[in-house]
Amino acid sequence: MPRRNRDNLSFVGMPVERVDADIKIEGRALYGDDLEFADMLYGSYVRSPYPRAEIEKIDISEIEKDPDFVRIITCRDIPGSNKCPIVYDDYPFLADGICEFHSQPVAIIIAKNNFKAKELARSVKLIAKPLDFIDDIHISIKDKKNIFSNYIIKKGEALKELKNCRYIVEGEFTTNYQVHSYLETQVATGIYSSDGRMVVYSSTQCPFYVLDAVCAITGLNSNKVKVIQSVVGGGFGGKEDVPSIVGAHAAVCSMITKKPVRILYDREEDFRSMSKRHPSYSKVIYGADENGKLKVCIVKYILDAGAYSTLSPIVLWRGTVHSTGPYKIDNVLVESYAVKTNKVPCGAFRGFGQPQISFAQESLIDDLADKIGIDPLDLRLKNIIDLNSLTSTSQKIKESIGLKELIEKVREKSRWGKSNLKPSAHFKKRGLGASISYYGVGLGAKGKYLDRAGAYINIYRDGSINLNVGNVEMGQGALTVLSQIAAEMLNSPIENIKLEEVDTSKVPDSGPTVASRTTLMSGNAIIEAAKPLRERIFKTASEILGTDKFIASDGYFITSKKKISFNDVIKECWAKRLKMSEQGWYVSPPTSFDLKDGQGDAYLVYSYSANIADVEIDTETGEIYVKKIYSAFDVGKVVNPILARGQAQGGILQGMSWAIYENLVIEKGIMKNPGFTDYIIATACDKPQYDISFIEKTYSKGPYKAKGMGELPLIGIAASLRNAVKRAFGIKINYLPFLPEKNLKLIKNL
Amino acid sequence: MPRRNRDNLSFVGMPVERVDADIKIEGRALYGDDLEFADMLYGSYVRSPYPRAEIEKIDISEIEKDPDFVRIITCRDIPGSNKCPIVYDDYPFLADGICEFHSQPVAIIIAKNNFKAKELARSVKLIAKPLDFIDDIHISIKDKKNIFSNYIIKKGEALKELKNCRYIVEGEFTTNYQVHSYLETQVATGIYSSDGRMVVYSSTQCPFYVLDAVCAITGLNSNKVKVIQSVVGGGFGGKEDVPSIVGAHAAVCSMITKKPVRILYDREEDFRSMSKRHPSYSKVIYGADENGKLKVCIVKYILDAGAYSTLSPIVLWRGTVHSTGPYKIDNVLVESYAVKTNKVPCGAFRGFGQPQISFAQESLIDDLADKIGIDPLDLRLKNIIDLNSLTSTSQKIKESIGLKELIEKVREKSRWGKSNLKPSAHFKKRGLGASISYYGVGLGAKGKYLDRAGAYINIYRDGSINLNVGNVEMGQGALTVLSQIAAEMLNSPIENIKLEEVDTSKVPDSGPTVASRTTLMSGNAIIEAAKPLRERIFKTASEILGTDKFIASDGYFITSKKKISFNDVIKECWAKRLKMSEQGWYVSPPTSFDLKDGQGDAYLVYSYSANIADVEIDTETGEIYVKKIYSAFDVGKVVNPILARGQAQGGILQGMSWAIYENLVIEKGIMKNPGFTDYIIATACDKPQYDISFIEKTYSKGPYKAKGMGELPLIGIAASLRNAVKRAFGIKINYLPFLPEKNLKLIKNL
Repeated sequence: MPRRNRDNLSFVGMPVERVDADIKIEGRALYGDDLEFADMLYGSYVRSPYPRAEIEKIDISEIEKDPDFVRIITCRDIPGSNKCPIVYDDYPFLADGICEFHSQPVAIIIAKNNFKAKELARSVKLIAKPLDFIDDIHISIKDKKNIFSNYIIKKGEALKELKNCRYIVEGEFTTNYQVHSYLETQVATGIYSSDGRMVVYSSTQCPFYVLDAVCAITGLNSNKVKVIQSVVGGGFGGKEDVPSIVGAHAAVCSMITKKPVRILYDREEDFRSMSKRHPSYSKVIYGADENGKLKVCIVKYILDAGAYSTLSPIVLWRGTVHSTGPYKIDNVLVESYAVKTNKVPCGAFRGFGQPQISFAQESLIDDLADKIGIDPLDLRLKNIIDLNSLTSTSQKIKESIGLKELIEKVREKSRWGKSNLKPSAHFKKRGLGASISYYGVGLGAKGKYLDRAGAYINIYRDGSINLNVGNVEMGQGALTVLSQIAAEMLNSPIENIKLEEVDTSKVPDSGPTVASRTTLMSGNAIIEAAKPLRERIFKTASEILGTDKFIASDGYFITSKKKISFNDVIKECWAKRLKMSEQGWYVSPPTSFDLKDGQGDAYLVYSYSANIADVEIDTETGEIYVKKIYSAFDVGKVVNPILARGQAQGGILQGMSWAIYENLVIEKGIMKNPGFTDYIIATACDKPQYDISFIEKTYSKGPYKAKGMGELPLIGIAASLRNAVKRAFGIKINYLPFLPEKNLKLIKNL
Repeated sequence: MPRRNRDNLSFVGMPVERVDADIKIEGRALYGDDLEFADMLYGSYVRSPYPRAEIEKIDISEIEKDPDFVRIITCRDIPGSNKCPIVYDDYPFLADGICEFHSQPVAIIIAKNNFKAKELARSVKLIAKPLDFIDDIHISIKDKKNIFSNYIIKKGEALKELKNCRYIVEGEFTTNYQVHSYLETQVATGIYSSDGRMVVYSSTQCPFYVLDAVCAITGLNSNKVKVIQSVVGGGFGGKEDVPSIVGAHAAVCSMITKKPVRILYDREEDFRSMSKRHPSYSKVIYGADENGKLKVCIVKYILDAGAYSTLSPIVLWRGTVHSTGPYKIDNVLVESYAVKTNKVPCGAFRGFGQPQISFAQESLIDDLADKIGIDPLDLRLKNIIDLNSLTSTSQKIKESIGLKELIEKVREKSRWGKSNLKPSAHFKKRGLGASISYYGVGLGAKGKYLDRAGAYINIYRDGSINLNVGNVEMGQGALTVLSQIAAEMLNSPIENIKLEEVDTSKVPDSGPTVASRTTLMSGNAIIEAAKPLRERIFKTASEILGTDKFIASDGYFITSKKKISFNDVIKECWAKRLKMSEQGWYVSPPTSFDLKDGQGDAYLVYSYSANIADVEIDTETGEIYVKKIYSAFDVGKVVNPILARGQAQGGILQGMSWAIYENLVIEKGIMKNPGFTDYIIATACDKPQYDISFIEKTYSKGPYKAKGMGELPLIGIAASLRNAVKRAFGIKINYLPFLPEKNLKLIKNL
């Protein structure tokens, strides 16, 4: 019998093994530094020694005699523009006169090998005058010109209605940086050839951003440049904007030296100069009526953007839109700010401005329940958005929302309110804490010009298939999920499909690989490309079978009498000279948003989650241990249950790591712990038990009704931990990370 | 005023400068051996020492200690198939037991550099037993199993009607080899990577043939292999089949050694083992009635195929179809044979089996005119096919035939019959000689499954354009002509277009770059891809201009009030998220041909030429000097007059070189002059004056009504020279080349 699941599908919804598992497990995958080129040179940076500085002189006299020294590149050598194209284009590729943060790239030393490049770069005498700097958002925000961007959401009469509320809670929350901690640091190689073409291999989530940056710095047109994604050893947002800079540097170095040039960050410089999750400050107020119905939400949300605006305007926008939580609230007032400080520019990180405000908002909802004296899950159930209700931006939810069921699911699974959890020692306390979240899938109204994606399908005569898309595999499983979608559409064996790393010359600009948009956007683009191919293939199959009554399943076309393979059908298609290659293009449905009052349809659709954390706190040390996380997700159709589960586990652990362990220390503008020796992250040893469920509320416009998944699992974790600690022991940890020494102070104040 | 020509076009028909002129003139183009890869190895061949041999042992004991020796590859190392996929797949990649020609590849020695690889390969002791061999087609043909293929054309009652003819002429003709004499010898590089992908850079006319060969030898599926054409330093047919073998060798060597491996032929081995123009024997009989009306043509045509069939079956077919000349003849009997000999396999060469038989047939037509006593041009004019007449395969000419005008044109230009040409010395004689030819454009009925082509157009946000097709630039100007067609369709500046060398992963299998099919097939594929793009661009332009009444010309969209650039329109298209990339696919219209009697529509359409040669013969030395060639062509619309003229000049000189100079000597199966020291070709010094005209009889299904041009100019040259010598001095040179020593014998016999 043909293998088909309950949706009558052979590949979508099936636990297909990762298509890149073998090459990764066996060490055969080619990451950025595995690629070898003849006569390759290496670039390394001279970086700003101060948080803010005026460059006076770059003295290379000590290194220029070195036989391995090739040359120095400064901003004066750049043939094109010295501004990296990221939103407001304010970040210079190489500092020109003034440095705005410690470790900002000032010059590149090119040498014959990587070790020598690093050594020589360290030996350059950079003569610079330290200047005054600002490292505190609360000081910085006082000067308007330090505000990179700000938004407002205004609905109803929040200030006025607050007075009428029976219950009011208010809280201030802070969060710290999070470092992406990918295994593979930033790396790119530029290869300029004598015929005027540039190829850049980049470890990137956003090959088209790198393309734009390379064109900007070199002055080359896009059709002379090809950005090819090398296998990415982890992204999490960290390979979103910075690879543009690294790739552009490698490209310009190659253009000038006429040799391949690689730039490979070491871990310390990766810490010091890479974008991170924004530290934040937020103040949230909720007001509810006597029935526990939410009436008002007032938010002030500030992100510490660092020295250049880079992605902050859009990170802030996402946080702002989601800042009130997935609740029906008639009166909303949100103000948000991304503020400059003389620190490393912050950027994208899984969740993209949502986790910080979700921590604040979901903590405070929990406190409101306490204040009202009802179960926090009941309070949420009473107020959550549902079909046809409006979000805080007045977007009507028209379909695909399983939030209620998710809450019920984790409540049931965790035996919420029923079990009597025992701590593992008498000096420990244990409790359950909840949170919920929603996540607008894709770029939304603020990024709508980028919300399109292409796909290219080429079916060879032997039935094997090349599939190209513009979004990347970075560990999340895109290669597999998108292969499943293509296999389902074409009814080809999944082994026939080779989905390649992105090559910007093969597919049109498909925007960034961010915002949990890959399955939705590239999946739909694949469907667009596959549609006419499917038609030709199925028609040819029916001609061979002599009937159009056949079952297409698992790579075969089957009647009661006959079974023919995909490969045989393709052979016949080619004999008929049918067109066996297509470009697909998908444009997301329209969104609308009015920046004046923050009202409108911010996103296409939302994914949802509910979490319950089972947590222990050591009352003597202040340490927090996560025993188990119950998470339930509505991400629409789950294309691959194994991979979806993996995404959930990774997101939960990364959220937990941010909440409990990760503590980047910057003192007077200088990073104190730029490495894994004293910047601690959760490891496999720290992982909790996972209890993960999916409720598939399908989305009509998604590929096979899928929405998006990548970021959602992380978002609510911090709040669920904080709420669990509160329920275990009564302390309210309104800061991240939950440092034991700080927790102890709270415990002592009890 | 907008730049537009009489056809209201801005680019097509204009003398656009070669788009690859700069990189070629400045030495920046990357030919096969210019590409550098890290840790590259080199392969060189152990070759058969005899014309036929049984291999007994390959002894590498003398070389295996050499530090530069890496390993030997024999047929036993091949993971896939040992038969190169060319028509009948009889040519082994590496000889297995028996060698069938001198210099056949037996093993590959891989070493750390090219010099060492060649040296070590020479030092291998190949112990082999010489076997009996056949080097003469007249002996070989007696054994049926030596006939690789044969065809027949049978129309009317040739043998019967011959008896009724008033005038009968009969002649036997022989032609020798022609070596392609491209500047760049065969070269390929295979790069197998640990992730299981194979990239092969190949100097090839047929990247998809190389793809098939690489898949065959390695056992890899097509989607794991990418063949990328390096800039080709000349093809002329010589880069049609053999690059499959060279590319497959490089690929398998790389797969086994896990390093990049290059194979680069030196000139001698290129001579010895490369395919060539087939030597031929032909016997032609024409019969005419009392009015000089052709009634009968009987042809026997034999090609010396060499040791393996390779392309001979299709070379023979083209020659056969065209063997009676472009005349209306009711009674035709053609038999043709490709016969095995133990010599190097012959293959494709500009004209592809037509020049040999055209030499015979156009010589004999001239002799018939002499016999009848009428002007040879008048005889031709009386008998040529015209609109609605039938070819010898009974194909009705439905459109686009300018043969009559071409003959009138060269008659007028050469002052045929009017001028009194003076020889340059008293011992020299001078005369004019004529020939005409036709050329079926594309692969025709015999290759119809291959007669399709793809194109990919990708328009970037900055307005720059990537264009990819499956046919190659090999010096003929394809990049320029196809860029013109794309620019015309899109109304983009031609500078915006970057047409890249072929990458088999970017476009579907578009067949070979042969048969003068590139402009027609890839041109039409580009038009298919461009159509929807043009529609979007023009619609967007009309929206910006506020009217659909505008002139699109030369990269601008113009009304009386406003002029906007292509780049501005593209910017707006992207802002609207329109699909700016498309795959085009073109399938040639159907042909039909019955192999039983050789009747049917052999080709889509024909191009035509007429030539008059002004020639001097030195009666004391027998040497022949070509003073001037008048050629007129009907190739449909001329897309680029400079390039078309260049094609004409090159074809004429190459035809002349074949006729007069090129004399490859093979004695007892061994080549005696494998190099340019004693294999003489025409050079710039030998070039005649050219008088070239075009008469554009447009073809409704061609891209902007073009047909094809590349091979036509060569085909009739030899006969025109032979006929000129005859008219100058009375001798009939029925052999090629016109060696002075042989000519002298004819002169002495006068």
